[in-house]
Amino acid sequence: MLTVNAYAATSATEPLAPTTIQRRDIGPRDVLIEIAYAGICHSDIHTVRGDWGPVQYPLTVGHEIVGTVTEVGAEVTSHQVGDRVGVGCMVNSCRECANCRAGEEQYCLGGNTLTYGSVDRDGTITQGGYSTHVVVVEDFVLKVPEAIPFQAAAPLLCAGITTYSPLAHWNAGPGKKVAVVGLGGLGHMAVKIAHAMGAEVTVLSQSLKKQEDGLRLGADHYYATSDAATFEQLANTFDLIINTVSAELDLDAYLSLLALDGTMVNVGAPAQALPLHVFALFGNRRSFAGSSIGSIRETQEMLDFCAEHDIAPEIELISADQINDAYERVLASDVRYRFVIDTATLA
Amino acid sequence: MLTVNAYAATSATEPLAPTTIQRRDIGPRDVLIEIAYAGICHSDIHTVRGDWGPVQYPLTVGHEIVGTVTEVGAEVTSHQVGDRVGVGCMVNSCRECANCRAGEEQYCLGGNTLTYGSVDRDGTITQGGYSTHVVVVEDFVLKVPEAIPFQAAAPLLCAGITTYSPLAHWNAGPGKKVAVVGLGGLGHMAVKIAHAMGAEVTVLSQSLKKQEDGLRLGADHYYATSDAATFEQLANTFDLIINTVSAELDLDAYLSLLALDGTMVNVGAPAQALPLHVFALFGNRRSFAGSSIGSIRETQEMLDFCAEHDIAPEIELISADQINDAYERVLASDVRYRFVIDTATLA
Repeated sequence: MLTVNAYAATSATEPLAPTTIQRRDIGPRDVLIEIAYAGICHSDIHTVRGDWGPVQYPLTVGHEIVGTVTEVGAEVTSHQVGDRVGVGCMVNSCRECANCRAGEEQYCLGGNTLTYGSVDRDGTITQGGYSTHVVVVEDFVLKVPEAIPFQAAAPLLCAGITTYSPLAHWNAGPGKKVAVVGLGGLGHMAVKIAHAMGAEVTVLSQSLKKQEDGLRLGADHYYATSDAATFEQLANTFDLIINTVSAELDLDAYLSLLALDGTMVNVGAPAQALPLHVFALFGNRRSFAGSSIGSIRETQEMLDFCAEHDIAPEIELISADQINDAYERVLASDVRYRFVIDTATLA
Repeated sequence: MLTVNAYAATSATEPLAPTTIQRRDIGPRDVLIEIAYAGICHSDIHTVRGDWGPVQYPLTVGHEIVGTVTEVGAEVTSHQVGDRVGVGCMVNSCRECANCRAGEEQYCLGGNTLTYGSVDRDGTITQGGYSTHVVVVEDFVLKVPEAIPFQAAAPLLCAGITTYSPLAHWNAGPGKKVAVVGLGGLGHMAVKIAHAMGAEVTVLSQSLKKQEDGLRLGADHYYATSDAATFEQLANTFDLIINTVSAELDLDAYLSLLALDGTMVNVGAPAQALPLHVFALFGNRRSFAGSSIGSIRETQEMLDFCAEHDIAPEIELISADQINDAYERVLASDVRYRFVIDTATLA
């Protein structure tokens, strides 16, 4: 067992605090990673505050991890000491169910092992990336291309893949009109990726406050959803809407913006049930869908795509002692567009 | 103008009663049809009772119409006197919008002209098939193959196409698991068509009351949704669920039955908003969609498919003076599976 420095939540209400956690001994197929940077995802905050269900405290969160391989197990073939690697939202899956066999282990029916807060095979609770080191089985470790600035690479492992996956699955590309709802951590990546895929990109944001940013990031159009005229003007327009917003919104109104056979995909996860009129789906044969991160294969594809297209998240680098302030700023939507922890400050 | 016999609603609460209505003079591209049979659709009842919005009374409903061509306009090329023909839910569309140009005029953005209750080009309100004759522009008249028994053909024009369209669009066929929710007018057609397409078909009905029928119609499996074990047993199973039920149901529970990339399609139209947890869509990348009738091209395809596969609705033939009783029985789910009016009884 390795004892390593970390930042952990001890309850739903206390600030996160420095601590030490245990990492398992390096098994034959494991990789030991010295973490360099860890992104702060809104999910981290939802989790530690108990918004999504009971939590076994203390818990170290963080599932946007990049670092360097410092040791590998005897049977590891895909990574070497010194490699730049990444770890995202999951660190294992059952490998036996239909979805795992289809290479879509993010939808593992046995329940995949999440990077934090999951019961691991040895019965311990997985601990995330706000830490100096992590041990992960090689198949769930990604290669981070040199072309991507290291500290900016971390948020690709969640915000990047969570938006890339539905954009790729629903065929965003030339000739397609894609709307991105919300210009936060996920939204700003959706804009960059959809633009790089060749789609015509529209941001739908509450106000025009970030309009200049949105256009700079690659959006072709920018509309305020607080203006009712937006919904009239854009009725029946989009082939694909990526909704990154976790807050409750008027589904019927957003669905009315979809063109024939258009799909609105939620990657934001409101905890409460949203009311939906089926009539809103009849026109244009519309669909409302959900998408959850992406497979390991697709995550590697996304990293390579970002390297090829010079895409990286816009980040604000912080030290570990700024995590609690960063949480408050995320909740106040006061971050452009992702906080990344320099985990050297945990050493 | 032609004055023809019909049965009409005069208010949301009065019984339907015999009357006469006007049909327009036969224009150069119009077809005059002597109606032989008209199906009773649940939509007719929703409409005349004002469930779906205000109605301009008196109104003759009915959008499952078959009959014989008795006169054609000078420029008509696709139909001849004596042809067996059908008319479904729409009798015209704008022909100019993106959806009409794409051959999907059921989603006409200009608003298509429904068979009853729509404002027609001449400003009159369209009147439906509970009548002896109707005048329709040739492009919205279907050919009814000789292989389909005439009186049973009528319900294909709504119940048939409404279920065929989503089954075809979402690729029901060999290797696909399809569930049909509700075994009524639409549901029994969905079972027959999905079975003929080669899918493995499961009926999800409130009780096992119609199980024998369901299996006879082509279902491979039959489950009662009143039994909570059904939802555990069938979790993550279906590629496609066709929901024919207009009543409010627990969307989250039904969505949990979808396998990877599965879609639940509503063809039933509950008037009230249904609560939906987005989390129910995340697992298996599920979709919830709507589908509305089908295009004219697809309706002809469906009629030809039914002729080829010996598919016809199960009907109960009634005379016009039984319409009001039939409405009560439809509302009590006491029909196997579609009432068809012998319109000769209106003469």
